[in-house]
Amino acid sequence: MRILVVNVNTTASVTEAIAASARAVAAPGTEIVGLTPRFGAESVEGNLESYLAAVGVADAVARYDGPFDAVIQAGYGEHGREGLQEMLDVPVVDITEAAATTAQYLGHRYSVVTTLDRTVPLIEDRLLLAGLDRRCASVRASGLPVLELERDPDRAIAAIVAQSRLAVEHDHAEVICLGCGGMAGLEDKVRAETGVPVVDGVPAAVTVAESLVRLGLSTSKVRTYAAPRTKRVTGFPLQWGDESR
Amino acid sequence: MRILVVNVNTTASVTEAIAASARAVAAPGTEIVGLTPRFGAESVEGNLESYLAAVGVADAVARYDGPFDAVIQAGYGEHGREGLQEMLDVPVVDITEAAATTAQYLGHRYSVVTTLDRTVPLIEDRLLLAGLDRRCASVRASGLPVLELERDPDRAIAAIVAQSRLAVEHDHAEVICLGCGGMAGLEDKVRAETGVPVVDGVPAAVTVAESLVRLGLSTSKVRTYAAPRTKRVTGFPLQWGDESR
Amino acid sequence: MRILVVNVNTTASVTEAIAASARAVAAPGTEIVGLTPRFGAESVEGNLESYLAAVGVADAVARYDGPFDAVIQAGYGEHGREGLQEMLDVPVVDITEAAATTAQYLGHRYSVVTTLDRTVPLIEDRLLLAGLDRRCASVRASGLPVLELERDPDRAIAAIVAQSRLAVEHDHAEVICLGCGGMAGLEDKVRAETGVPVVDGVPAAVTVAESLVRLGLSTSKVRTYAAPRTKRVTGFPLQWGDESR
Amino acid sequence: MRILVVNVNTTASVTEAIAASARAVAAPGTEIVGLTPRFGAESVEGNLESYLAAVGVADAVARYDGPFDAVIQAGYGEHGREGLQEMLDVPVVDITEAAATTAQYLGHRYSVVTTLDRTVPLIEDRLLLAGLDRRCASVRASGLPVLELERDPDRAIAAIVAQSRLAVEHDHAEVICLGCGGMAGLEDKVRAETGVPVVDGVPAAVTVAESLVRLGLSTSKVRTYAAPRTKRVTGFPLQWGDESR
Amino acid sequence: MRILVVNVNTTASVTEAIAASARAVAAPGTEIVGLTPRFGAESVEGNLESYLAAVGVADAVARYDGPFDAVIQAGYGEHGREGLQEMLDVPVVDITEAAATTAQYLGHRYSVVTTLDRTVPLIEDRLLLAGLDRRCASVRASGLPVLELERDPDRAIAAIVAQSRLAVEHDHAEVICLGCGGMAGLEDKVRAETGVPVVDGVPAAVTVAESLVRLGLSTSKVRTYAAPRTKRVTGFPLQWGDESR
Amino acid sequence: MRILVVNVNTTASVTEAIAASARAVAAPGTEIVGLTPRFGAESVEGNLESYLAAVGVADAVARYDGPFDAVIQAGYGEHGREGLQEMLDVPVVDITEAAATTAQYLGHRYSVVTTLDRTVPLIEDRLLLAGLDRRCASVRASGLPVLELERDPDRAIAAIVAQSRLAVEHDHAEVICLGCGGMAGLEDKVRAETGVPVVDGVPAAVTVAESLVRLGLSTSKVRTYAAPRTKRVTGFPLQWGDESR
Repeated sequence: MRILVVNVNTTASVTEAIAASARAVAAPGTEIVGLTPRFGAESVEGNLESYLAAVGVADAVARYDGPFDAVIQAGYGEHGREGLQEMLDVPVVDITEAAATTAQYLGHRYSVVTTLDRTVPLIEDRLLLAGLDRRCASVRASGLPVLELERDPDRAIAAIVAQSRLAVEHDHAEVICLGCGGMAGLEDKVRAETGVPVVDGVPAAVTVAESLVRLGLSTSKVRTYAAPRTKRVTGFPLQWGDESR
Repeated sequence: MRILVVNVNTTASVTEAIAASARAVAAPGTEIVGLTPRFGAESVEGNLESYLAAVGVADAVARYDGPFDAVIQAGYGEHGREGLQEMLDVPVVDITEAAATTAQYLGHRYSVVTTLDRTVPLIEDRLLLAGLDRRCASVRASGLPVLELERDPDRAIAAIVAQSRLAVEHDHAEVICLGCGGMAGLEDKVRAETGVPVVDGVPAAVTVAESLVRLGLSTSKVRTYAAPRTKRVTGFPLQWGDESR
Repeated sequence: MRILVVNVNTTASVTEAIAASARAVAAPGTEIVGLTPRFGAESVEGNLESYLAAVGVADAVARYDGPFDAVIQAGYGEHGREGLQEMLDVPVVDITEAAATTAQYLGHRYSVVTTLDRTVPLIEDRLLLAGLDRRCASVRASGLPVLELERDPDRAIAAIVAQSRLAVEHDHAEVICLGCGGMAGLEDKVRAETGVPVVDGVPAAVTVAESLVRLGLSTSKVRTYAAPRTKRVTGFPLQWGDESR
Repeated sequence: MRILVVNVNTTASVTEAIAASARAVAAPGTEIVGLTPRFGAESVEGNLESYLAAVGVADAVARYDGPFDAVIQAGYGEHGREGLQEMLDVPVVDITEAAATTAQYLGHRYSVVTTLDRTVPLIEDRLLLAGLDRRCASVRASGLPVLELERDPDRAIAAIVAQSRLAVEHDHAEVICLGCGGMAGLEDKVRAETGVPVVDGVPAAVTVAESLVRLGLSTSKVRTYAAPRTKRVTGFPLQWGDESR
Repeated sequence: MRILVVNVNTTASVTEAIAASARAVAAPGTEIVGLTPRFGAESVEGNLESYLAAVGVADAVARYDGPFDAVIQAGYGEHGREGLQEMLDVPVVDITEAAATTAQYLGHRYSVVTTLDRTVPLIEDRLLLAGLDRRCASVRASGLPVLELERDPDRAIAAIVAQSRLAVEHDHAEVICLGCGGMAGLEDKVRAETGVPVVDGVPAAVTVAESLVRLGLSTSKVRTYAAPRTKRVTGFPLQWGDESR
Repeated sequence: MRILVVNVNTTASVTEAIAASARAVAAPGTEIVGLTPRFGAESVEGNLESYLAAVGVADAVARYDGPFDAVIQAGYGEHGREGLQEMLDVPVVDITEAAATTAQYLGHRYSVVTTLDRTVPLIEDRLLLAGLDRRCASVRASGLPVLELERDPDRAIAAIVAQSRLAVEHDHAEVICLGCGGMAGLEDKVRAETGVPVVDGVPAAVTVAESLVRLGLSTSKVRTYAAPRTKRVTGFPLQWGDESR
């Protein structure tokens, strides 16, 4: 089974870290392929960048040359998943939702700890749309941007642990979701400091995607996620993109 | 005051109809400028096309050369409004929301009558996110695609009237919102047949945009819609687009 | 176009302030007429007074001698709007709702800052009924009664600013609504101190009312707000009122 | 114990029927006193009439000369209960809520069957405010006005039974609430025809009121229902009313 | 009228206290019979114990030899009420719900103060299922286990009062529900310290049960609470229980 | 990895069918052990039977002699999962929730098709508690009892298909969940007839349980699902049970 794990930003090192995190949990026989969008932002921290990512991710998948069995959109709280579902016949899993459904099996309520405060409403909105909001105790921000996780990991971890503790003690969360595709590998630290299970969305999404494939299930095509109607579409996938680089 | 009214599809005749509809209600002194995205679908009837439209609309606004006071996103149930709000300092109004807030002043519950059944969940999702869902009695589809409104208007009107009647009689709607940017001008017909007020999103959005400008109000920049952080962004606005046409 | 702006309390100076605030934003050609109920409380700060105001406002409108195009009920969180909608054929706009729908165009969540703590539940109830509660981050009270705004404006402003700051910093509001008809004119102060857009309900309601009139829309008469049935009604409008003063 | 049962309309025969229904279930030692408002509508079937009733009921209670232990507002879906709670130190019970809380002890979901379609939204709104809406399967209208219940009881009963059956079979209601103060005495007929428990609000409210008195409980005065502040109030209770009749 | 008041734990002294509390409010002619489950936990403070209690309570009622008119399940936030409703033809009242519906007549919002933090989610879940959650301001825990109420009442009262104060001042509760069957008798202390009405579930449930009986109402048998179908059931009521003691 | 799959009824053939269905999807190296409660009902179709099952399942797991890595509660809409989570250190998965979270990855809304109408509210309640209700379009009943699925499979399938079609066409479900542990093996038939993905809870739960184990995650023990406190418990696990058989 081959699963495409698509980063939402254009930073290749983040794609590599995400793919490594996915491979660490993948079942024997599952091949993980990491994809990076050809255009968009080096880190996605807001709606405009996220809409760019939605198209960038779709473009990356549309241009992928070869068969695959499932796609994981590896951005937390981002736009775009529904478009992939229309475009593809294989299952599509968003890490925001995979982390949430996993967390809901582990405790009465869960919290998400993410990067910047400005991304909190995006995550809240995605959970609301996914019908996974009611057991979400809070979405908290560490205050550090995505790329800081690579640059100064100690400081990032300290901030994430601090917010996770507040989520447990103040918001009554019983599980923590790491709210950023780039937080892979922090689970143990946060668990050790808070005493609660910690869910990273990428490995969670790998198990969900593998499960759907094994169950022989894929996106329903009767209504919302039916294939796009045949019509004139200009500029997708972005053919001109090649010349323009 | 200059208001940009941005179509979400690439069909210029639809842009013209929308702009005409906007001009018909605009206050003296308000200039309406219709914009058409350079890329995307000829009609937007699903998520993938809608995500393309989100970027296409942002691109069109980013490339607009000249001052403006407000932007109207003239697609019903489409993605993208939040990105525009980050990108701009002037008010941004989505016609889905303008129709709904207008309708809520007129009756206890309202319904939306749109084109294809597959777009119903998109509209429901946008109303949910906007916090305007609870007084929505139903979103109903006429079953006819967007461009059919231009091709066979009589058939389109009959189907829209039929669903509007069901909304009033069966779902207890007291107001009908025309759920498509291209339905401009059908208000009178539907009102005559149903006996309830009919709201078209484009003129409603013009009055909302003008109101915000007159009140001296614009998007809050403290959190969700703060300007994007300074960072490396590849491919927006789409420079290569020009060469590729 | 003539708009009746009806105060909910019997204090004429408040009516004048409200009318002045309305005039400041009214379009050229819009005439603002301020009305004061003939009976009721000098300030409305609770349910009993608010129910009296509901009838007092309806009475004032019923007795108004002359044509008008729209009515604004200029009390925050008060009862009565639905009765006016039944009684009249022209649009009726409540400032609580006008402030909320305006605020929702400006930020992800808004807060209301009102006068006394006891009026908070009334405002919450009105927003719930209006289907405008989900994006309301909080309703906060300055602790100062309505009329204190006239008597000791500096102290009132300081208290309102303090609560507005808490709304932004603690409740994550991105917009502040001034939750009292008598707070007109405080927008600039509160905006300067908090950095977020500030919405005053009276001018917001003027633009909504003007918009509805321009759009040719008025209250739906098919169900909830149909004209009262013909029947024996004793004591409304309050004929005896004249003799009894 | 003396309980005031206040009709919301000005029709004395309805007051008598309500009081008789209350007496039929009252405990030994409970005295039921029926009150009729001095002003308002002969039947309350809409918001304007209901706001008049809110003040009319408060006026009737304020003028009642003698001690009492509780007040029942005997109108279904009407405004006004919160005002009475502020005005009084004894418990206040609304029959809409008493019927709903009683019904909720008897089945998973309940429906309300009321008179005119136009009153359905009022009842829905009151249940929403009371936090008693989620287990309400539906509010259905028989289509017959309040006073028709007295004029043509057979026809009224047939229509009420028909809607009750639909509520059970179609909406999955397991209990029926009779949604009009004037439906007293129809319980047996509706129960016989539908096979489900039928709750009449007036006797239900009598048991709630008696219960609160026996438990030594009354309205909390710390916030929402604190006594009105001392201030200048014009025209309540309606002194001039006496002269004007 | 005979009402069975069934303790959920196996501690006979708690049953006695509960029965005494019930008798203190019971109407003349109402006989209160306290029952203790033959198996289960000495105090119920979690889901596993609560599920045992659900069966233990049903077993105790099934084995009760003699007629009765209503059953009260005297555990706060416990499982089991729905099973009793299926099993019996007489009304069944859960004290969690009786306290909540009583509290809702007394203030805009209420809080529950219970024993251990771990039982908070159980109570929240029961209120959610009962449709009584929206006016619940908070469920707070004193941190002291059930049986501590008997062992060190002063410490228990102090902790309960402290949380009640926080509920009123911080969560804006206007009424306090004592969230444990064993808190009977603390109402006066908590009321004196907080100034708000205090509801104990057991006496509240007695008045609800008496009311239902007087109204001639019992559980609807058309769907959710229909009698169990005839089938082979092993081990209930627990015949072997007798031999095993 | 060893997973206990616990039937909720006492019918061994149902346990075998469930275990076979689980084994069909289990990963290489996963051992499925089917358990049947020692007491309870031969089929669980209501609350009383479901509460018995809650204790019966816990008893069966408590008496299981040997190590295991996860537990699946294989009853649709049944009580008991939370108790297992307290009792155990390994993950616990309920098939109602596993089906729902799986379905939510496949379509915008899903429906459940179950056996008897009386079990619909139980399933609705479990989905509400699990926070998985908002995307549930409907829970529909085929009208045939659990054991009929074994006795007359053709009739059962026809009824299930008929309701599934209504769910898709009338309720706008895009995915069907088979709402009974005993419906294993019907997926293909229902999918062929409706054109939408069909989820059986048992195999879905196997993949969820395996995923949690592979991710190294188990139930949070900080609050709701902490191990029961040490105390005197009578009659669990049911020692006397052995003698009584």
